[in-house]
Amino acid sequence: MRPTLGAATLLDRQSHKRHDAPYLEQLRAGAQAKFLVLADQKPVIRTNAERTEATIRWFSRDQLLRLGLPTADALFLGVDRVTGGGCFAVAVTEHRARNAPGGLELLRPIVDLRTLAMQGAMSSEELSLLGQAKALAAWHENARCCGHCGGTTLVKDGGWKRKCWACGQEQFPRTDPVVIMLIVDRAGDRCLLGHEARFMDKMYSALAGFIEPGEDIEHAVRRETQEETGIEVGDVRFHSTQPWPFPHSLMIGCIGIAKTTEVNVDPNELQEARWFPRAEVKLMLEGKHPDGLWVPGKQAIARALITAFVEGWWQD
Amino acid sequence: MRPTLGAATLLDRQSHKRHDAPYLEQLRAGAQAKFLVLADQKPVIRTNAERTEATIRWFSRDQLLRLGLPTADALFLGVDRVTGGGCFAVAVTEHRARNAPGGLELLRPIVDLRTLAMQGAMSSEELSLLGQAKALAAWHENARCCGHCGGTTLVKDGGWKRKCWACGQEQFPRTDPVVIMLIVDRAGDRCLLGHEARFMDKMYSALAGFIEPGEDIEHAVRRETQEETGIEVGDVRFHSTQPWPFPHSLMIGCIGIAKTTEVNVDPNELQEARWFPRAEVKLMLEGKHPDGLWVPGKQAIARALITAFVEGWWQD
Repeated sequence: MRPTLGAATLLDRQSHKRHDAPYLEQLRAGAQAKFLVLADQKPVIRTNAERTEATIRWFSRDQLLRLGLPTADALFLGVDRVTGGGCFAVAVTEHRARNAPGGLELLRPIVDLRTLAMQGAMSSEELSLLGQAKALAAWHENARCCGHCGGTTLVKDGGWKRKCWACGQEQFPRTDPVVIMLIVDRAGDRCLLGHEARFMDKMYSALAGFIEPGEDIEHAVRRETQEETGIEVGDVRFHSTQPWPFPHSLMIGCIGIAKTTEVNVDPNELQEARWFPRAEVKLMLEGKHPDGLWVPGKQAIARALITAFVEGWWQD
Repeated sequence: MRPTLGAATLLDRQSHKRHDAPYLEQLRAGAQAKFLVLADQKPVIRTNAERTEATIRWFSRDQLLRLGLPTADALFLGVDRVTGGGCFAVAVTEHRARNAPGGLELLRPIVDLRTLAMQGAMSSEELSLLGQAKALAAWHENARCCGHCGGTTLVKDGGWKRKCWACGQEQFPRTDPVVIMLIVDRAGDRCLLGHEARFMDKMYSALAGFIEPGEDIEHAVRRETQEETGIEVGDVRFHSTQPWPFPHSLMIGCIGIAKTTEVNVDPNELQEARWFPRAEVKLMLEGKHPDGLWVPGKQAIARALITAFVEGWWQD
């Protein structure tokens, strides 16, 4: 598996202590406590003048109080491995952040996480931490009312649970497992890449789709590939996983070996899909394709799969 | 990866046709249409007198109409690969099933899915199909109201979507990714098995826990193992996945290599955890342990991991 370069190097989540409200309050009130701000799920960051370096902008509790931003229901991200202080996320609307007293000065720039990841100006550890906060905040957005009875739900356990005020039903953060699969032909010479209408111009990537109830990952890889391209897949090899906070997915990367070659694209799913020989894919990875075709950047698991194909990983 | 012995051999899900309401209605009204019934998420089945063989009890639309059970919002499971007929699930309360006209005769036995899986009297393909239906039905139970605004949601796309009547927000079936990991010591001679308070007496199994927002599977394996037992895990190897409809999980099975050996059990999570040498685990698999200790049956991915340890799979 690929090494984990995530927020775990910065923070200890202390998930077994989340239910301990006095402990969390002590962390929240501590001198080392720090808070990041999400405005409509987009982080407030710091950058240098050239915007080539970006870091999370951390606030103290006092700063947030002066800005009129609430810390009571702040999401508990974990404890800083260096200072031992509690790290929290405060999720507000962009409207509120922009209208906070002094907000125009302090609460900017606000950059959406996808753009931040594309720019490559932030460390993978901090991006991972923002991903954790963003995925959690996105779940809260759609868990404000109880799915069972419609009643108002309250934040519990530092934001890792919501409980219905009316019926008592508990809800936990949602993570959607997604298969992302690079399909390789039987000889191992070509791989299948697709272009979706929503993609940027000339970008091609691996196929992907949500794992459904009752499926294992092999089944989901075969079903999605068949539906989107008509290609039948035999053997499926697991490669690696990556959390992907849009809104709160777990990408499960696989290589699948095709049993057929004729591509029939479902136009509702893909604009185009075709077989690419290894030499052409290598040029796409290197940014040297004669027609300017390209593949996702190094922040994406798709690139890891495509690199694995070029290097013949699945034939080990 | 382990071969898929799932419902895919019986049904084609036709997930790309679910949005086509006239097509679904045509399937539902077709002569080959068949419906299974879930009563409080427990399937109605057929068994022989000795209860050594069990199959799904399928109903025609007419039968259900006579029983007063609704088919309009039936969950679309897929198309039978042999007959081409639509297969659906009707989810009602057990109270309603037991009080249907003629219900006492037709609507039994009703057996919960976990017991059914334990008994081993039903084929893995039919169990898998019931798992798909049950996971979907369990999601519907807690998606009746909109998490965003609390409004009533309506069933769409044959039960694969719900849409808020008030704000239009869409919801999709939920699947929770769970890591289940067998931790092996550095020498590969012993594995770590735990006993939870909710387990049956003398049963030991692999550790497990939900993957959280912002985590990949390696991170979740390390965090959960550390929290539950104090053991630090280094290398993590992916083994296989299995859908697990309690209520709607995807089990992601891994082998983890321990970096430490001292076990400190978190009593909130586990009653006991300890290292078991290979020879002892082999006796547990064979049902020959001198103290009657045992491991989960062949329906569980935990057993596949434990078998992999006994056979030295992860050392390949």
